[in-house]
Amino acid sequence: MDMNNKGRVTLPTDVDIINETLETMERLGVDALRDCDGTEFPKELLGKGAKVYATYYTTRKDNEWAKNNPDEIQQMYLVTEPETAIGDTLDIELLRDFYKPQFKVNTMHDIKRWWEVIDRTTGEVVPVSHWDYDEETGKVTIKTDKYHEYTVSFLAFIMWDPVHMYNYITNDWKDVPHQMTFDVRQPKTQKYVKDKLAKWCEDNPNVDVVRFTTFFHQFTLNFNDEGKEKFVDWFGYSASISPYILDEFEKEAGYKFRAEYIIDQGYQNNTFRIQSKEFKDFMDFQQREVAKLAKELVDIVHSHGKEAMMFLGDHWIGTEPFGKYFPEIGLDSVVGSVGNGTTLRLISDIPGVRYTEGRFLPYFFPDTFHEGGEPKKEAVENWVTARRAILRSPVDRIGYGGYLKLALEFPDFMDYIESVCNEFRTLYDNIGEGKPYVAPFKVAVLNCWGKIRSWGTYMVAHALWNKKCYSYGGILEALAGMQFDVKFISFEDIKNDKSILDDVGVIINAGSAYTANSGGENWADAEIVTTIKEFVANGGGFIGVGEPSAYEQNGRFFQMASVLGVDRELGFSLSTDKYNWEEKPHFITEQCKDDIDFGEGIKDVYALKNAQVIVNNGGDIEMTANEFGNGRSVYLSGLPYSFENTRILYRSIFWAAGKENEMKKWYSDNINVDVHAYMNTKKYCVVNNTYTKQSTTIYKGDGTAFELDLQENEILWFDM
Amino acid sequence: MDMNNKGRVTLPTDVDIINETLETMERLGVDALRDCDGTEFPKELLGKGAKVYATYYTTRKDNEWAKNNPDEIQQMYLVTEPETAIGDTLDIELLRDFYKPQFKVNTMHDIKRWWEVIDRTTGEVVPVSHWDYDEETGKVTIKTDKYHEYTVSFLAFIMWDPVHMYNYITNDWKDVPHQMTFDVRQPKTQKYVKDKLAKWCEDNPNVDVVRFTTFFHQFTLNFNDEGKEKFVDWFGYSASISPYILDEFEKEAGYKFRAEYIIDQGYQNNTFRIQSKEFKDFMDFQQREVAKLAKELVDIVHSHGKEAMMFLGDHWIGTEPFGKYFPEIGLDSVVGSVGNGTTLRLISDIPGVRYTEGRFLPYFFPDTFHEGGEPKKEAVENWVTARRAILRSPVDRIGYGGYLKLALEFPDFMDYIESVCNEFRTLYDNIGEGKPYVAPFKVAVLNCWGKIRSWGTYMVAHALWNKKCYSYGGILEALAGMQFDVKFISFEDIKNDKSILDDVGVIINAGSAYTANSGGENWADAEIVTTIKEFVANGGGFIGVGEPSAYEQNGRFFQMASVLGVDRELGFSLSTDKYNWEEKPHFITEQCKDDIDFGEGIKDVYALKNAQVIVNNGGDIEMTANEFGNGRSVYLSGLPYSFENTRILYRSIFWAAGKENEMKKWYSDNINVDVHAYMNTKKYCVVNNTYTKQSTTIYKGDGTAFELDLQENEILWFDM
Repeated sequence: MDMNNKGRVTLPTDVDIINETLETMERLGVDALRDCDGTEFPKELLGKGAKVYATYYTTRKDNEWAKNNPDEIQQMYLVTEPETAIGDTLDIELLRDFYKPQFKVNTMHDIKRWWEVIDRTTGEVVPVSHWDYDEETGKVTIKTDKYHEYTVSFLAFIMWDPVHMYNYITNDWKDVPHQMTFDVRQPKTQKYVKDKLAKWCEDNPNVDVVRFTTFFHQFTLNFNDEGKEKFVDWFGYSASISPYILDEFEKEAGYKFRAEYIIDQGYQNNTFRIQSKEFKDFMDFQQREVAKLAKELVDIVHSHGKEAMMFLGDHWIGTEPFGKYFPEIGLDSVVGSVGNGTTLRLISDIPGVRYTEGRFLPYFFPDTFHEGGEPKKEAVENWVTARRAILRSPVDRIGYGGYLKLALEFPDFMDYIESVCNEFRTLYDNIGEGKPYVAPFKVAVLNCWGKIRSWGTYMVAHALWNKKCYSYGGILEALAGMQFDVKFISFEDIKNDKSILDDVGVIINAGSAYTANSGGENWADAEIVTTIKEFVANGGGFIGVGEPSAYEQNGRFFQMASVLGVDRELGFSLSTDKYNWEEKPHFITEQCKDDIDFGEGIKDVYALKNAQVIVNNGGDIEMTANEFGNGRSVYLSGLPYSFENTRILYRSIFWAAGKENEMKKWYSDNINVDVHAYMNTKKYCVVNNTYTKQSTTIYKGDGTAFELDLQENEILWFDM
Repeated sequence: MDMNNKGRVTLPTDVDIINETLETMERLGVDALRDCDGTEFPKELLGKGAKVYATYYTTRKDNEWAKNNPDEIQQMYLVTEPETAIGDTLDIELLRDFYKPQFKVNTMHDIKRWWEVIDRTTGEVVPVSHWDYDEETGKVTIKTDKYHEYTVSFLAFIMWDPVHMYNYITNDWKDVPHQMTFDVRQPKTQKYVKDKLAKWCEDNPNVDVVRFTTFFHQFTLNFNDEGKEKFVDWFGYSASISPYILDEFEKEAGYKFRAEYIIDQGYQNNTFRIQSKEFKDFMDFQQREVAKLAKELVDIVHSHGKEAMMFLGDHWIGTEPFGKYFPEIGLDSVVGSVGNGTTLRLISDIPGVRYTEGRFLPYFFPDTFHEGGEPKKEAVENWVTARRAILRSPVDRIGYGGYLKLALEFPDFMDYIESVCNEFRTLYDNIGEGKPYVAPFKVAVLNCWGKIRSWGTYMVAHALWNKKCYSYGGILEALAGMQFDVKFISFEDIKNDKSILDDVGVIINAGSAYTANSGGENWADAEIVTTIKEFVANGGGFIGVGEPSAYEQNGRFFQMASVLGVDRELGFSLSTDKYNWEEKPHFITEQCKDDIDFGEGIKDVYALKNAQVIVNNGGDIEMTANEFGNGRSVYLSGLPYSFENTRILYRSIFWAAGKENEMKKWYSDNINVDVHAYMNTKKYCVVNNTYTKQSTTIYKGDGTAFELDLQENEILWFDM
């Protein structure tokens, strides 16, 4: 046995699987054990050389408390579907389109203060005297203008925790009571929960790590009348409110809170929306208050000699790890689910904790671990995909979740994760404390969110595929495994301090027009536009993907058109002849063999006179290169993740930065193979990201090259 | 020989082709002869039984006058390409991107009054003290803010008439002097032109018809530094201005004219832009003044016992035949070029003239009539395409243009147009004075322009294919040959008098978001939205194509989403789950066999809960049907012209109107065959629109049916 046969691995267990757990611990080198939602930790496994993690829920698993304190059940702002008034009055049944077991309309607080009926034809608020709610029928009756559309924004108690509900449905649980919610921010519950946590810590002396799942506020997740997901925003604040909290907020903000600050025309201020001032104020308030209270819970845990770990997900609103108050919580660690390289970095890059842990897929749940399921295949994909990112910024531990019993029925799967555990320990040691080799300039991803959404851009629900997302998500997934320092910056950052661009070689702006990712109205700000133009003119690079800098005004759609060398035809400039359609070869696409996959692409983009067209897809320009002053710009219509596209982005970045001569350092000619160098440990590795054998030429840091063959998925380590 | 062997046909001639002209006149039954740009009318052909048309130019073909009156040469507002200031000053060479022989910068009038330098980063006008023009270098020097973009809007004299230039290049003329322009609206030229016309009428007693080409103002057409078309808008007013005219306008309007009213951020208020108030004021002023002056010229022609005919094109700005002042001109007739069914109706539906004439394609020009050219093929396509529309609303005459000498070298072509002339005369007689059978409700095409752009919507340059146009143009082309009364209405019409919808069964709104066709800000007007919702709720039909009612506000992109049953995902509502994707069969597509061609289509359209999805193209909804109150709505992502799509629109209209039971009257089951019935003459015809034989079932007005076989392109006439 080598040195890497033990540690850095967490395994789930349960009361009915004690001996098998002990065997598996030995096999995988497990040094921590955990329970899960729906499992119990067996006493027999205490003192067996593994730390004990205990999942801890602050907001549910205590229906007694919830039932006795109905005023402190969690709440969510909901909005009805727009309905048209055919006559002078309109009845809107509030919960018609919602899953009724999830919600109870809140009439406990003044509905005329906290609800809002809005005429969605005019955008005007309907005076409270023009509507009433009938508790019996569950309907709001509105005095209407004919043929106008109306919505009702209202408060509802969350009678069934949405994550419990999700797990319940996914695992087909029967006869399990629906777990109700309670709001730790409110006074009675807060005291109760703190006392209970202290008592729990006392009662559980063998638990080493309290794993909070998570703190107080669930991301926005609700279900429709058929019990199917209706709205999900992993970053959403709609479920973080209560009149108690809003009163507190008002005292600080000095202005009245409106339901519309959350509802936002029905979009609910999701992560793709440009934040209003009021929503930003509220986010800041919530993050600060959540951090303060979370710290109190963490302090309780620490006072009992235990570690505090946070699960990145579920009730995590207000604890965004890249937000400014997060380090104040004083957590020991964060654990999160690893869907790909991007979500790996979402965990491993977190500042202000001692260690991070990645929960790898698949979860040992029956949706994968059933007859005919292919858990090993999923595990290979998950590991190989995440490994690119681990090699840039490693998590400190890996682990699994679910029912070990299910996994043990798949020996090939267990063999594979054994090899993963060993491979992980080796690479972790070889990476060491230092930083891997990076190109001599930073890449900045520019959007409305900046740092707080580091690696979290283009995500509706955690790591799930989405239309209008995957064509941009490929950028982050590519970057997650690339040899660049990436920083996520906002327009506000630039306005606050232009020196934020000093160490940046290339700015990337990518997203759909008018979203928080593209930037919308920020591109109407001359200070932003001129600052970035100056950055490029002085030799910087600007890569636009999709609808970068889109804001229709002053004769342009893309406000950076003169830098990008492209604009999008909205139908206003059809009278202007366009002649630049001929594709010409370019450095960026030198390694492309087949048609490039731009994902969804953007229609009607055309090249300006002096830009170089690289890809013209039948009159829709998909890739261009342009020069502006001493700088360069690249336009791509989309960039879903693939090895081909990763190489395109890699070459685009070096070209845009004007550093294409620096590209072949710690570099593999074969696009399926990566090289990572660690100056600190004087090691470097060559890693085959594919499921087939690969041959390649490897360029070392001094430019010397050698040929190399690799087995499927192989990682080879070398001394410098 | 039958009764239809003579009349209703105009032929071009020239001095070198006298005998051949006489022979051809006999063959085709020609009753009018004409000259062309670049030809002379031969004296020998006078008194040969044909009316004589003489092309008359009011604004060119007199370089002597232009040279002696340089202040009255026509002018155009031009704008430079946006340029970024890298430093504190920026030099912009005004004519750099223009074809220099076309323009001369106008410094004769106060440049600080009439020009405008605009900061296109902020949209602000640069104070006149911050810029100067150097006549020597042709450059404007601007005191700039760094990294802002600037344009200069300026006046230029049109030194080479753009149509003459176009013909010159197309026909490869050599050693022909460039024809300069002059402005008949200005006092010296006005008097000169009137006197000259009177004298010309006296000098040309044998001319029967003065064919004005056209009156005073050329549509916007300019060329770039390589002599290629730079900007073209067949409806554009940019070349209709001069300080003289603008001074007059200001007196009436009571406010200062700005270059920007024409330049419009560089879009130049083209037909796809929603007109500003100032631009509408200016259009109205110009139309009124042009009509007044044109009437004076027409009166001169009439006073000499001649007819006045207008060519619909070239210098036609201000004489829009569906505009309100047009009938006041007192023209006898309008002649125009027929590209397809839509352009045929653009001529044949003109009110206020005694007769209309269609100029059919191809023109006898060397671009078609050369070795290897296929003029017959073009003629067949042109005739068969236009015939659908002629059968709904016939022009009174047909004719050809160009060099007869060239056409005579293609005997198959001459045979074909002989048959066309005969076929035209027969159908004209059979149609008679009455109206063909129409469905018992009207179809309204709703956009910002309304009546003035009847059949002229979706057109950049006359009848030419354009991206973002053809996918909508198919609607008009289909309607041009369909058994519906079509009216073109504007949002303003609806606001002025809602009874405009009283006889309408179906409203069609089609176009790209925010264009004058879709309607843009009009859909933010609650009065418009509620009026149309009420219309539908009361049983009306609403067909939306592309981005109908698009105006992002209040949580919707399509403001008529609840009527249409679809909206477009801009990226703001990705968090909202969408479940309505399953295609279901529908009445509208019952006759569709293959994949439907939606043209360019619109990405990211999704169906609302209760709509019926008819076509889902991989997550982009392309066709739906929906019910709203007692009415119905159909969404189509695009509708390029084809027989299949014509049938789809036909069925959509009947379904949306709730009149699908009335559909099979004067109806052919075969989509390639049309039926038209003429109550006045008790005739009906069955017409094969294809180049292959067809079999079909024909339904008569009483619902009885019979089988019929037709030859290629055949038209068969029946008595009722």
